[in-house]
Amino acid sequence: MKHEKKAKVRADLLVTGDYALTFNHKKEVVEKGAVAISGDRIVAIGPASDVGKEVEAKEVLDASGCLIMPGLINLHTHAAMTCFRGLADDLPHQKWLHEHIFPAEARHVNEETVYWGTMLAAVEMIKSGTTTFCDGYFCEDGAARAVAASGIRAILAQGVIDFPAPGVADPRINVKAAETFVLRWQNKSPHLTPSVFCHSPYTCSPETLTKAKGVCREHGIFFQVHLAETMNEVEDIQKRYGRRPVDHLHNLGLLDGRTLCHHAVWVTSEEIEILRQNGVGVSHNPESNMKLASGVAPVPAMLASGTKVGLGTDGCASNNNLDMFQEMDTAAKLHKVHGGDPTLCSAVQVVAMATSGGASALGMEGELGSLEPGKKADIITIDLNQPHLTPMYEPCSHLVYAARGADVCDVIIDGRTVMRHRQLKDMDEQEIMAKVREIAAAIR
Amino acid sequence: MKHEKKAKVRADLLVTGDYALTFNHKKEVVEKGAVAISGDRIVAIGPASDVGKEVEAKEVLDASGCLIMPGLINLHTHAAMTCFRGLADDLPHQKWLHEHIFPAEARHVNEETVYWGTMLAAVEMIKSGTTTFCDGYFCEDGAARAVAASGIRAILAQGVIDFPAPGVADPRINVKAAETFVLRWQNKSPHLTPSVFCHSPYTCSPETLTKAKGVCREHGIFFQVHLAETMNEVEDIQKRYGRRPVDHLHNLGLLDGRTLCHHAVWVTSEEIEILRQNGVGVSHNPESNMKLASGVAPVPAMLASGTKVGLGTDGCASNNNLDMFQEMDTAAKLHKVHGGDPTLCSAVQVVAMATSGGASALGMEGELGSLEPGKKADIITIDLNQPHLTPMYEPCSHLVYAARGADVCDVIIDGRTVMRHRQLKDMDEQEIMAKVREIAAAIR
Repeated sequence: MKHEKKAKVRADLLVTGDYALTFNHKKEVVEKGAVAISGDRIVAIGPASDVGKEVEAKEVLDASGCLIMPGLINLHTHAAMTCFRGLADDLPHQKWLHEHIFPAEARHVNEETVYWGTMLAAVEMIKSGTTTFCDGYFCEDGAARAVAASGIRAILAQGVIDFPAPGVADPRINVKAAETFVLRWQNKSPHLTPSVFCHSPYTCSPETLTKAKGVCREHGIFFQVHLAETMNEVEDIQKRYGRRPVDHLHNLGLLDGRTLCHHAVWVTSEEIEILRQNGVGVSHNPESNMKLASGVAPVPAMLASGTKVGLGTDGCASNNNLDMFQEMDTAAKLHKVHGGDPTLCSAVQVVAMATSGGASALGMEGELGSLEPGKKADIITIDLNQPHLTPMYEPCSHLVYAARGADVCDVIIDGRTVMRHRQLKDMDEQEIMAKVREIAAAIR
Repeated sequence: MKHEKKAKVRADLLVTGDYALTFNHKKEVVEKGAVAISGDRIVAIGPASDVGKEVEAKEVLDASGCLIMPGLINLHTHAAMTCFRGLADDLPHQKWLHEHIFPAEARHVNEETVYWGTMLAAVEMIKSGTTTFCDGYFCEDGAARAVAASGIRAILAQGVIDFPAPGVADPRINVKAAETFVLRWQNKSPHLTPSVFCHSPYTCSPETLTKAKGVCREHGIFFQVHLAETMNEVEDIQKRYGRRPVDHLHNLGLLDGRTLCHHAVWVTSEEIEILRQNGVGVSHNPESNMKLASGVAPVPAMLASGTKVGLGTDGCASNNNLDMFQEMDTAAKLHKVHGGDPTLCSAVQVVAMATSGGASALGMEGELGSLEPGKKADIITIDLNQPHLTPMYEPCSHLVYAARGADVCDVIIDGRTVMRHRQLKDMDEQEIMAKVREIAAAIR
């Protein structure tokens, strides 16, 4: 156990459970574990018998029968797209995008729909164990208000695209609008970190990309971009700029430790090396890549090289849920069959992607992604006393291959219990669902 | 609405919900639907306003906020392997099988462990919407007792293999033991249909296979076999018999409308044509095939050809749960990315595989797989009033891409309500889990 010695440490909350999965560098599994929280930070973790002796806690959250673990990090969302969940599936990609998603967005995306769509996403994510999500969308002020209201942690970015977009009719001011969002929300809340999201190298000119990254550098924030998602994109960028997408961005000087690339499906081993060398983060979104038939990202090679890779669900128009447990399961299995090797993407590696990997990709490895003293208290518990999780030989195996979002019992974000026994503390689920159903009735 | 006209039809139970998904040949979605049940049969289905007028029911199951649909058919299980859930993962196939699974089976599989393992599987399956499963394992009398005790519907087969196996030390009597099982359980219960399961063409000689199929023909029952699961198997069979696996079985005269092949991953278009022409059923088990890196079965081609294909989970050592909703999601997405075409394996096709497709593959299409008057009353309801199922534009999309087993609210099998509001009527979940934990403690 690691914490200050001598006098009893004061804590606000002590969480005790059957197991605590630290996901620190040793990936320890502590039987009969406990985590002590003071304010928004973890102050101690270890066997409950030790922690109990050395910590005096105001309140105890007894998670008997549960496993305690770090909250999951969903590295790629368009949260408000819950409004379009299941609107169009099983269609050719261009038809799906141009005949269904873009028109629906043009007509129905505004600050109000983004607020309610993001509220619904926050409810769904908290109920399935996600404590941090990394988002990009339009009218993102609505998302920021939802994050403030819900208590979930988020990295939020106003989307930048060289076309008229919801909330930004004139694309000439798209980067300016994104910067306005950053200035409005920076340092406003410990939960909310602003960012800028350029849609992609095929929808943003080199000038737009460069200008947007400049804004990020000026404000010390993350630059996000969809990159090398489809083979079409690779061909298109090669035709336009004579380079493949990763090389194109590298050539523009956009790849560094504060850039997060989403998808990175069609990348060569040379491009993986560029990403790694420059400390670029990658979000892997296997379910979206499968559903849209985009391809299979070379994640085992990325992991082997030491590239920073986390896991994401993408938006609800292309998945169609935000369940990171299902995403973990799919990630582990997809790479095994794709690589013809059942040892690829082990359960431990996949849980690491969904926790510490996501934190690293966001440059937040000092704050998030594991249960360690000094880190933010973003913690979830998993109810193990269920038929599909019985018996249990190895916790990580169950988290990846047997569990699902509905098994999450309690959620603590920034030291605050936002869900207890699957009941949300502050959010009115029924009201939020009713509002999104109203939005959908207008879309239909 | 289809039912007898004139006087009011007497029914034992009327189930009403927000939607009824018939999965008849028209795949109708009835808004504000109702299903009337008399004894073990559906007697009417249609809009609640119509059914209510023409049926007089003793009892009403009000599933407001829910979708009513046919129970799912899990076409491939080794149910008792719940005892080995998560015992060994992420290993090379031969090491997994020979160093972990086979030794654990040799030491721990007996009628008692098979009983409790199958009880746990039945609980898990009912709670995730499966009403029929098709099983093969050793000491299958234990499974039969569990099926009788649980009320779930099953096709059960004693496994046949040319090695000493749990319960059958002398392989020379393996087919005889399987026949004894059939004789013991045939016509004992409307829930239980016996069958014979030869492990595979690489573990059963042509003589064993032929003899086993002969027993099946004699008793009018199904012959099951793992077939063309791995590339190694294809090479092995080709080396031994000069034919690929499907051709090998065809040459032995084993392929007909009462044969069910599990996996069929490595089959050519000529072999698909052999399966189709002979009316052979196929179970597709995408999650198992992915986790063991077996390969991707050519399911879109099978469906296009009219081959009878259903969906299965395989045993819990290779998946590791029995959630058919997750299996549907994976099936739809896997074939899209594998075929590079997002229109492959549509949501409707996948739900059909998990219901009517499974029924056809089992030769039970007259009894199971859709909500139609005259069919068995195997019915589940899905709670739609949940964040991850909100909003809803299209029911099948949600069933495949957003729902999970935990969303199943009520389960009716053979006209009897076995689960209401996620509470099992007759089974003691806690006792069953405790027994399997005891078994696992000995295995560990």
